[in-house]
Amino acid sequence: MSRIAAFGEVMMRLEVPGYSTLAQENRLAYSFSGSGVNVLSAMSRYGHDVFLLSALPDNSLGEAAFANLRRLGLSTRHIKRSGQYIGMYVLEKGFGARASKVTYNDRQGSSFNTAEFSDEQLEAAVADADVIHFCGIALAMNDRVRDNMLRLAGEARRQGKTIVFDCNYRPSLWGENGYERAKPYFQQLLGLADIVLMNEKDAIGVLGMSTARTSREEQLEELIPAVAKQYNIRAIAGTHRRVNGDNTHCLKGFLYNGNRLVWGKERSFLVYDRVGAGDAYASGIMDGLLRELAPEQIVEFASSAARLAHTFPGDTPMSSREEIVKAMSCETGDVER
Amino acid sequence: MSRIAAFGEVMMRLEVPGYSTLAQENRLAYSFSGSGVNVLSAMSRYGHDVFLLSALPDNSLGEAAFANLRRLGLSTRHIKRSGQYIGMYVLEKGFGARASKVTYNDRQGSSFNTAEFSDEQLEAAVADADVIHFCGIALAMNDRVRDNMLRLAGEARRQGKTIVFDCNYRPSLWGENGYERAKPYFQQLLGLADIVLMNEKDAIGVLGMSTARTSREEQLEELIPAVAKQYNIRAIAGTHRRVNGDNTHCLKGFLYNGNRLVWGKERSFLVYDRVGAGDAYASGIMDGLLRELAPEQIVEFASSAARLAHTFPGDTPMSSREEIVKAMSCETGDVER
Amino acid sequence: MSRIAAFGEVMMRLEVPGYSTLAQENRLAYSFSGSGVNVLSAMSRYGHDVFLLSALPDNSLGEAAFANLRRLGLSTRHIKRSGQYIGMYVLEKGFGARASKVTYNDRQGSSFNTAEFSDEQLEAAVADADVIHFCGIALAMNDRVRDNMLRLAGEARRQGKTIVFDCNYRPSLWGENGYERAKPYFQQLLGLADIVLMNEKDAIGVLGMSTARTSREEQLEELIPAVAKQYNIRAIAGTHRRVNGDNTHCLKGFLYNGNRLVWGKERSFLVYDRVGAGDAYASGIMDGLLRELAPEQIVEFASSAARLAHTFPGDTPMSSREEIVKAMSCETGDVER
Amino acid sequence: MSRIAAFGEVMMRLEVPGYSTLAQENRLAYSFSGSGVNVLSAMSRYGHDVFLLSALPDNSLGEAAFANLRRLGLSTRHIKRSGQYIGMYVLEKGFGARASKVTYNDRQGSSFNTAEFSDEQLEAAVADADVIHFCGIALAMNDRVRDNMLRLAGEARRQGKTIVFDCNYRPSLWGENGYERAKPYFQQLLGLADIVLMNEKDAIGVLGMSTARTSREEQLEELIPAVAKQYNIRAIAGTHRRVNGDNTHCLKGFLYNGNRLVWGKERSFLVYDRVGAGDAYASGIMDGLLRELAPEQIVEFASSAARLAHTFPGDTPMSSREEIVKAMSCETGDVER
Amino acid sequence: MSRIAAFGEVMMRLEVPGYSTLAQENRLAYSFSGSGVNVLSAMSRYGHDVFLLSALPDNSLGEAAFANLRRLGLSTRHIKRSGQYIGMYVLEKGFGARASKVTYNDRQGSSFNTAEFSDEQLEAAVADADVIHFCGIALAMNDRVRDNMLRLAGEARRQGKTIVFDCNYRPSLWGENGYERAKPYFQQLLGLADIVLMNEKDAIGVLGMSTARTSREEQLEELIPAVAKQYNIRAIAGTHRRVNGDNTHCLKGFLYNGNRLVWGKERSFLVYDRVGAGDAYASGIMDGLLRELAPEQIVEFASSAARLAHTFPGDTPMSSREEIVKAMSCETGDVER
Amino acid sequence: MSRIAAFGEVMMRLEVPGYSTLAQENRLAYSFSGSGVNVLSAMSRYGHDVFLLSALPDNSLGEAAFANLRRLGLSTRHIKRSGQYIGMYVLEKGFGARASKVTYNDRQGSSFNTAEFSDEQLEAAVADADVIHFCGIALAMNDRVRDNMLRLAGEARRQGKTIVFDCNYRPSLWGENGYERAKPYFQQLLGLADIVLMNEKDAIGVLGMSTARTSREEQLEELIPAVAKQYNIRAIAGTHRRVNGDNTHCLKGFLYNGNRLVWGKERSFLVYDRVGAGDAYASGIMDGLLRELAPEQIVEFASSAARLAHTFPGDTPMSSREEIVKAMSCETGDVER
Repeated sequence: MSRIAAFGEVMMRLEVPGYSTLAQENRLAYSFSGSGVNVLSAMSRYGHDVFLLSALPDNSLGEAAFANLRRLGLSTRHIKRSGQYIGMYVLEKGFGARASKVTYNDRQGSSFNTAEFSDEQLEAAVADADVIHFCGIALAMNDRVRDNMLRLAGEARRQGKTIVFDCNYRPSLWGENGYERAKPYFQQLLGLADIVLMNEKDAIGVLGMSTARTSREEQLEELIPAVAKQYNIRAIAGTHRRVNGDNTHCLKGFLYNGNRLVWGKERSFLVYDRVGAGDAYASGIMDGLLRELAPEQIVEFASSAARLAHTFPGDTPMSSREEIVKAMSCETGDVER
Repeated sequence: MSRIAAFGEVMMRLEVPGYSTLAQENRLAYSFSGSGVNVLSAMSRYGHDVFLLSALPDNSLGEAAFANLRRLGLSTRHIKRSGQYIGMYVLEKGFGARASKVTYNDRQGSSFNTAEFSDEQLEAAVADADVIHFCGIALAMNDRVRDNMLRLAGEARRQGKTIVFDCNYRPSLWGENGYERAKPYFQQLLGLADIVLMNEKDAIGVLGMSTARTSREEQLEELIPAVAKQYNIRAIAGTHRRVNGDNTHCLKGFLYNGNRLVWGKERSFLVYDRVGAGDAYASGIMDGLLRELAPEQIVEFASSAARLAHTFPGDTPMSSREEIVKAMSCETGDVER
Repeated sequence: MSRIAAFGEVMMRLEVPGYSTLAQENRLAYSFSGSGVNVLSAMSRYGHDVFLLSALPDNSLGEAAFANLRRLGLSTRHIKRSGQYIGMYVLEKGFGARASKVTYNDRQGSSFNTAEFSDEQLEAAVADADVIHFCGIALAMNDRVRDNMLRLAGEARRQGKTIVFDCNYRPSLWGENGYERAKPYFQQLLGLADIVLMNEKDAIGVLGMSTARTSREEQLEELIPAVAKQYNIRAIAGTHRRVNGDNTHCLKGFLYNGNRLVWGKERSFLVYDRVGAGDAYASGIMDGLLRELAPEQIVEFASSAARLAHTFPGDTPMSSREEIVKAMSCETGDVER
Repeated sequence: MSRIAAFGEVMMRLEVPGYSTLAQENRLAYSFSGSGVNVLSAMSRYGHDVFLLSALPDNSLGEAAFANLRRLGLSTRHIKRSGQYIGMYVLEKGFGARASKVTYNDRQGSSFNTAEFSDEQLEAAVADADVIHFCGIALAMNDRVRDNMLRLAGEARRQGKTIVFDCNYRPSLWGENGYERAKPYFQQLLGLADIVLMNEKDAIGVLGMSTARTSREEQLEELIPAVAKQYNIRAIAGTHRRVNGDNTHCLKGFLYNGNRLVWGKERSFLVYDRVGAGDAYASGIMDGLLRELAPEQIVEFASSAARLAHTFPGDTPMSSREEIVKAMSCETGDVER
Repeated sequence: MSRIAAFGEVMMRLEVPGYSTLAQENRLAYSFSGSGVNVLSAMSRYGHDVFLLSALPDNSLGEAAFANLRRLGLSTRHIKRSGQYIGMYVLEKGFGARASKVTYNDRQGSSFNTAEFSDEQLEAAVADADVIHFCGIALAMNDRVRDNMLRLAGEARRQGKTIVFDCNYRPSLWGENGYERAKPYFQQLLGLADIVLMNEKDAIGVLGMSTARTSREEQLEELIPAVAKQYNIRAIAGTHRRVNGDNTHCLKGFLYNGNRLVWGKERSFLVYDRVGAGDAYASGIMDGLLRELAPEQIVEFASSAARLAHTFPGDTPMSSREEIVKAMSCETGDVER
Repeated sequence: MSRIAAFGEVMMRLEVPGYSTLAQENRLAYSFSGSGVNVLSAMSRYGHDVFLLSALPDNSLGEAAFANLRRLGLSTRHIKRSGQYIGMYVLEKGFGARASKVTYNDRQGSSFNTAEFSDEQLEAAVADADVIHFCGIALAMNDRVRDNMLRLAGEARRQGKTIVFDCNYRPSLWGENGYERAKPYFQQLLGLADIVLMNEKDAIGVLGMSTARTSREEQLEELIPAVAKQYNIRAIAGTHRRVNGDNTHCLKGFLYNGNRLVWGKERSFLVYDRVGAGDAYASGIMDGLLRELAPEQIVEFASSAARLAHTFPGDTPMSSREEIVKAMSCETGDVER
């Protein structure tokens, strides 16, 4: 069991029921998530002790978020009550040929995105953790958040803690000239990170690297080791995803670790709710590396965790380690009773 | 932007939630639709100015129908408040091997089916529109409705407006000897129409035409030009549909225009709610013809509109022109965020 | 235990959830009820063997109605599958100063209101019952229904069965000159009935009787015995109701039996759903007379049944005899656990 | 029939179902409202032609807002698509001793609160209306909104249109020294307004007026005429409200017009949803003044509209003129069927 | 039409809505089912007269169960009111790669599992039926239930009634050394039964039979006739099921009757709710044998019934004979309207 | 801030929505509660560190219970995973004259009621807490539970921790001769307790004390000090409740502490959900005594907490200290926004 922290925003997810659009309905389901929340909840199910470093408003919305973070197994002991708002997004689930649609409502003004964390707060949080998870989404927010992240990562490095960085480059958040704007921050984080989640697209897009290869697999096999070398990263993992028009996706995971790149098996599977599946993959990689499993096992575990995460409503992975392992080794079973 | 009218009934759709039967449940979702409603709502999304010519009762049910027509973007300025009832149907959604089931509750006594429209009302409505949509379902109702329709179509012809006629032959509504009973009315409408939605089955069944060909495609390619010629119709469009047992359908559209018949690509896609998809196709054709696009583009746009319409709950198409175009040109995408 | 029949329509009740209007919502709760259904369901709870004489369509709506009648304890062995529609009404529940609103959708065309019952069917149903319940609402429908009712009542008289007639005069159903139109039919039924549900308003309005008294109580005390005498009715019962603006009603029951008029205590109580409470009162009176209880007990039992019926969602009374007796004798209790 | 405009924000209301808190539930009901929206929807029900001058984002949230404004009867022809967010608030309904709670989520960054309206846009909107409604809530937002409002009011005065100003002073929005901060803006609007909604608390608090009287009624009777005189206001109306612990409120309306102050009857009534009831009162006053009814009638009509507005879920009044008049003149009735 | 009885427990099914886990949600759908309930409800739809021999508590849970059994078409005349509890299970529906999960809450203490049925009660029930259905699940409960079952089966044999035994061996209910523990009871029931539902796995596992064949089909073809011979069973039927990861299953039925083994066609189909589909198959076999159809027809009818049963929410089959026959002979159709 | 423990069962509450009966509906809301859970959740809101000593099954039901206890703010670090079941009850909410009804489903076989706690487990739990809460409901269960409770209380006394005992005598759980059966266990707990929740009914009923006084207040004033003296109890608190037929209750609290008995004000208030309100009162008393407030303040705080607890759905109090204090000092307010 390790002590895992994550730095990240808590978002309120407002989901239109069924496959309706927001304009058709008058009811929503809500939950609280975020990249860090999702990773931590999974890590908590795997037996780790987890907490979120974040900020939430001191009102009914914050209260509800706290209750739901606790429900997911997170400790809230490092969450500030400051600011006034919570980031929100609306999810309209797609079906078949129609893609799901996420619409954000003001995130910039949220408690997290306006919070100042003092050096003392950051030091205390770092001291309380063995591993700290950072997400590239937060990097896209604003200077204050970036400053918080970089001071936190610096402190983690100083205290010798393990730093995980999930690139999660979101074009819509970085806007025009996004790659250029993102590059310096990504480089700083990569320079501090021990474990990184990314694939060849990040290397080409954000980091501006180039390759003569044409297939995605070959590009990845060339670029990922180069990234690891350049930024002195212990392990890099990620996935290739293909989206089909019949509610199925194909996913193929990889892990570069100890100078060796391992591919998982590509599998096709039915998708119920795609949001947050990347966080399930990340948490599977983190748990596997912490347990020092063989790379092949780690990739299969993380891929299985990701696959199952596509079958639950909500952003947050809900599978236990046992269920993930079972889904690795055997075929889909009949009803369990 | 054109001014589009439709003459048609507003139906109250009562949908059993999920995949239950009416005998299993105690809750319903309701909405208001109808062939004309669906076509107009789509045309409104495409930027046209639309209104329905219909009748609704002056009570809570009529009130709710008005509110929902406005929500869908329709103007209600030509809807009479008369009569006492609204037509209703119950939809029990099927799943896989089990077909969806529609059960009508008294339609004959509805405000629309008992309404008398004066010549003045019809003239005013025609004057207010550039294009008027008629549906073969209304033809099946009773003599009063047929009289209203034929007077309206006559007036539209007099004022030189564009007449669209969607055959929509429904065997269960016409009953025994349906083809025979329907034929004279269909012929009258076809004789007045500029744009017609139908396929070779209507030609063979309702119009009693014959062909030596055996494949549906060949039959269509022989009969549709003949229909266009005989009734002096500018453009005829329609689809071939194949229903599979795994919640997928195959659809292939066509458009005969300017003496040339163009087929769209056949595509297979997942179906969530099939009702109203034909109206999406019709509105795509109408919009494309109004914009004077190339026939190939029109068919692809209408087919894409129809495909997407299968992915929304409810009868009424919900896609914007941008979403339809996007679904034409690219593969199913990942969640949009 | 007696065998109780009722002749009456099964209505589908479509209830807007909470206190919204139909124009605000998109979901409905549905159930199946009707005056006869409500009386029989209560009688079934009191231990009697009950069946409905009615007609329902042979489709999903009829299927659902059958399932729900069985659920309420009714035998469906005398229900015809004929006709095509089921009567429907929408209930928008009021709150405080806003009255509840019932909107009917086509009832005239329903299976019940278009059904022909042969003499053999009526004879068989009468032979199967000890007591038969008739409701004045059905009298308002059309000539066919009235013919069915009068033939049935005649047959019941011939076979010496007990006839219960609940006047239930509904002004909106009888329309203009309603009293005049209703009078001959009400008189015929009253002439055949053994037990009647009515109050002085029916005597004055429908039967055209007059009195010099001014208070409702005195009017009733003068007119009800006169009605009983004139029409040779064994027992007449009914209530006085007062509706307050704070979701409470006041109810005071009476029973005239054996030349003696007994008043129950007037009580004020909170109302959740008022529809069908009159049927609960009627069933309490019927059960009490069948058990030959003292009139005072009968009125208190029926009043208690009616009061409780106001506290359940839906038209149909849900209380057991024990619960009704308990509610007669004691104050409102704390949660029962 | 008049042409009525309102300048105001569209808020998305997220309501926790039943009487739960946000922390207890996982579902919300949503609707779109706002002071201007509520007033306009009521005016539309009274037969006026209404439109909102506002701004909404060009995304799914804006789309849903548009659909719902149309549903409420508002024209959207003067609503800009600009900015990125929509103001939101969460409503946790109280019960008995527990007050309802409204929690805003970021409003400052909303499309409305960041929108620039050009002089041309404002002129066009003013030209399209006979009466324009302003609300003090918008004044509390920021300088841009205040600038828009004052330019709009100035233009309305120039074009000789009727200006309605509802003070709606909200302490929590104005923050510390709120009265002082608000005063200059309120004074400017009062100076331009023809019809004002306020009571003596606004005069004392915002305008800093004083009186030696101690009862609220007497204070009002002294101060309101003084305000009217000082700011040259044609009519001032408002209410006194008392909140009781048993889900009832007491409301007493007044109207000062033509140098005469008229009080309505104080009435106590059950409250289901209090939000928006003030807008119902305002719309009743506006409609009455436009129809040039007697002040006593206007107050009773507006009070009845307000009372009924407390009985509907949602912020927006749902009663027709007939229902309001009926609720004025008679007692609460039995179910209407 | 035959009189069919079943001996079995009524379970309350608590279903988590959608595809959520119990830990994610706060609402459940409930229904009442059980192997006997499911078989009888199907037989009732096929026109038979059916009743359940069971026990239920005399409280609100029992009341609700009674109402729902009646709704499903079952007579409750042989259900005891005794004991205090009802068996419950929670269903968390799986999706794609994630299997559905059933979690039982205390069943051992249920009314059924603690009920004593007197010899008189059993005799009366047997006398009331032509065919009696037994299920191996009940055998797994406890000695009291097994005693009830064996006495009932003995009495049925004495009165010469047809005994149907569905093996339904559930490993989790029999626990460690389950096969050994189950064997004697299964042998007793097989010795009394006329019609048996099982496949080769039961023969190998429970009965300890062996075969040199390796394919399931061949094993079955060797063992099932041997079982029939050894236990003198008139007919044995069952299925082979294969579960795929894309929400589809493959099913292939068989019937051994009159010394001849008939296989149905294997079909793949989409699955919505798998629970209870085995009971649909059993009822199809029973109905077919009662009607003395050809074995091929029986298997196809039972298979079609089972396939359709996978498409309804809830455990209980909902198809009419007509719908099943239609699904046998034709392809999936378009919406029926 | 103190460390508070409670020993008690976690119950799954299944609530029928609205005011329907279980036989009318097909959906339930569920939550997890229990006397100890409720007290601890309130204490957590008051800022204390709280944990439950209990047992839950290692399955989906236990998983959901864990998640929900965390949501309520409880630590689960002393909850055993053992046994197989969770106690359940169904709540059918009453309305007005109809009382709410609680129906338990098997509780005796639950994980809690079958759990063995080793001395080590009990010692560790006691060492982890400053105050331990016991509830008389658990005493009614069985010998194993009573043994666990008495060993735990003994250990708490040995370690010098504060023992709180809420008598909570439930007649239906103790059955016939309940007072006699309960007396010895209650006496043992009273002998060990520091703080007790009870009133004069417990003294007369369970403890068999007698008094010549006739009013409840006088009886209490005589008997409570006598109980405190006899059992050497530091503080005794409780309430008098009166249930009215209009959804209101009256409540009057008292506290006997330091030889002085203080009464709170009697207040009448509207009740939404009465279950668990006693636990809110108990937690208010505990918090007040821990903070060493004046007795008058403690009673008013506890009474206010109890009153508010009647206004939330669910068993568990949801108010913060601030909200309770606000509800003490002021009248019901208007909507807070």
